[in-house]
Amino acid sequence: MTVTTDATTIPAHLLDLDARDLLAHKRAEFLLPPDVLYLDGNSLGPLHRSVPARLAGVAEREWGQQLIRSWMGDADWMHLPERVAAKLARLIGAQPDEVAVGDSTTVNVFKALAAALHLAPQGRRVILTDADNFPTDLYVAQGLNALLGGGYELRRVPNTEVADHLNADVAVLLLTEVDYRTGRRLDLPDLTARAHAAGVLTIWDLAHSAGAFPVDLDGAGADFAVGCGYKFLNGGPGAPGYLYVAARHLDRAPVAISGWMGHADVFEMAREYSPAPGARRFVPGTPQVLGLSALDSALDAFADVEMADLRAKSLSLTSTFMALMELLAARHPLELVTPTEPEQRGSQVSYRHPDARGVMARLTERGIIGDFRTPDILRFGITPLYHSHADMWRAVQGIGAVLDRAETPV
Amino acid sequence: MTVTTDATTIPAHLLDLDARDLLAHKRAEFLLPPDVLYLDGNSLGPLHRSVPARLAGVAEREWGQQLIRSWMGDADWMHLPERVAAKLARLIGAQPDEVAVGDSTTVNVFKALAAALHLAPQGRRVILTDADNFPTDLYVAQGLNALLGGGYELRRVPNTEVADHLNADVAVLLLTEVDYRTGRRLDLPDLTARAHAAGVLTIWDLAHSAGAFPVDLDGAGADFAVGCGYKFLNGGPGAPGYLYVAARHLDRAPVAISGWMGHADVFEMAREYSPAPGARRFVPGTPQVLGLSALDSALDAFADVEMADLRAKSLSLTSTFMALMELLAARHPLELVTPTEPEQRGSQVSYRHPDARGVMARLTERGIIGDFRTPDILRFGITPLYHSHADMWRAVQGIGAVLDRAETPV
Repeated sequence: MTVTTDATTIPAHLLDLDARDLLAHKRAEFLLPPDVLYLDGNSLGPLHRSVPARLAGVAEREWGQQLIRSWMGDADWMHLPERVAAKLARLIGAQPDEVAVGDSTTVNVFKALAAALHLAPQGRRVILTDADNFPTDLYVAQGLNALLGGGYELRRVPNTEVADHLNADVAVLLLTEVDYRTGRRLDLPDLTARAHAAGVLTIWDLAHSAGAFPVDLDGAGADFAVGCGYKFLNGGPGAPGYLYVAARHLDRAPVAISGWMGHADVFEMAREYSPAPGARRFVPGTPQVLGLSALDSALDAFADVEMADLRAKSLSLTSTFMALMELLAARHPLELVTPTEPEQRGSQVSYRHPDARGVMARLTERGIIGDFRTPDILRFGITPLYHSHADMWRAVQGIGAVLDRAETPV
Repeated sequence: MTVTTDATTIPAHLLDLDARDLLAHKRAEFLLPPDVLYLDGNSLGPLHRSVPARLAGVAEREWGQQLIRSWMGDADWMHLPERVAAKLARLIGAQPDEVAVGDSTTVNVFKALAAALHLAPQGRRVILTDADNFPTDLYVAQGLNALLGGGYELRRVPNTEVADHLNADVAVLLLTEVDYRTGRRLDLPDLTARAHAAGVLTIWDLAHSAGAFPVDLDGAGADFAVGCGYKFLNGGPGAPGYLYVAARHLDRAPVAISGWMGHADVFEMAREYSPAPGARRFVPGTPQVLGLSALDSALDAFADVEMADLRAKSLSLTSTFMALMELLAARHPLELVTPTEPEQRGSQVSYRHPDARGVMARLTERGIIGDFRTPDILRFGITPLYHSHADMWRAVQGIGAVLDRAETPV
């Protein structure tokens, strides 16, 4: 099945919004299969058209022809993490040397939490987090606590009640800015300020933030942050993640995973570890050149984008989607779980449905790809770089058709 | 400059050895630039010709066209680590479910050491290692010790004296089987047995072993091992590393870095961590699909190779190289630091030279690419998959030309 819809049915005001879209030219930069309406860029961003040629160049020329010489020279793989960090820094409100790019998001959560627990005031033994935080953040905290002898408590509270639990027991506040299920966006600057007022260090997981809307870590006085390269940043499956360490912490934050590539002088091959300046110390192993190169290339999509424009379009798209879905909710058991207040959401919209798994399976068959998230969530990622208001219309038409048919017994 | 040599000067006995080379057909599988004689495959293996097409397919078809659906379905990225593990397991004498592929070698040393320290008999506080172990192994031990409160001692002794230091203070023996500078190969089965007799757990770094000669971890009763994907395994720059955990330890070894991809049920999104069966629990973050795919493709080079043939050819090549270099050592200050006894070396040959850095720079200009390693080591990686005995002759002719000219004052 396909997602084609008679264009004449699209409401004029939506076509008008698209005609005035400042980012409309970005869509052509992505490969978007014609038989798919892709609402899952918050799980795996689509292919930026620059990436295949970049990968071919890295494989055939940099690796194949130049071999080991590419660690220096033109390719300069050695500093690829820094070059990617510089592009990322602009998107998250950081200085380039506050950002270490490499390893998975999971490993970066580990690095951040190990450092933050060390910097926290002595005697504080609580890691405060959202009970519905993304599992890997919870598991990392559990694993690290066990490694450290089990003296910490992972305290899990509803994300709406986090501020009430900031007290003198809490060492670190570990939160994901945008809830991966509901799409609720927490108030990063406000919670950071409240945490600091209580003597608590913060770690923000920006998996569903960076690339979706402007983030200003330095402006918020954030301590640590981590994020994912393959969602709104479109870096490809399993792209390198990243770690942000505020400049004021860099020289005090211990490097739990200390490796040769984070050493002050890599090829000195010294027996004693001595950290490199800046966040590079948090790149312990050999940089993942293939993954970093794809991410580096994909990040160029943001080079000519004003993040304020991105956010404005994202809110217009998600508002449009929610308004159209409201009509379906009148006749189907759909419960909106994403806040309608703009400042309280990211760039996804989610609904509960009693047969969410089955509905998403049928949507996917029809070429409308979103995500099912246990137990009953339909999740739709909306991406201002390549979605149009007309896409919102087509998506809701398709969702309606699937739901209408699903509720006719077969 | 080039490395072309008049073929008529190559000694007949070397051409004869090449004529009988069981692995001669493998050379054509690699891109080896014609103006280069590459003796650095122990630092970065060359490009296996299957890789560019594989990367293009992953990017354009699996990612570009199939998008998120490739985590399941035909591409089945979710189990890519296991498929690579199965290919690797054969090369290192392991069962597939004892091998976790992903993350850097450095991060895998961290995982192994964290697990081994937990399993070691209580009260033992020494991590015994080779004073000249590869820096990242030393740095990881330093960083982990600091993270754990500094209660361990990293005891560094000459690798020839390791056995003398195995006593009831030692928790873990952390060794690299083949010294990255000298090429000395330690006796893995013997040292493992001696360690066990002293109640000591072992971690073997196989960076310069796997793919260079047969390794039999299960046969040796090894506990943990780690290795690198981009040296003799030719997985590409920054390829994923791997971790071996002996089956008998799997269910007792704690997972220090516990993440969602190592959970027993990834998409259950449970709040409590529960490890996946087998070594998959040690793959915490989202698999690095691009790097894993390149490594997966490159590992096919070993599919039709008997590891005994690989070792026999490797020893014949390194013996040839050493014999030819002996003639140069008579008139140049070259000191062989690689053991001449076959069982005591891997697949590299190294020499001290007072101007090693300058000599290697001039060799590289001439297209003979090896490595300089501080302070005074010339390192030549020799790779039975794609080197010939004639290559050894050409290499030594080129080295001789460079040394002869270098010692004529200019």
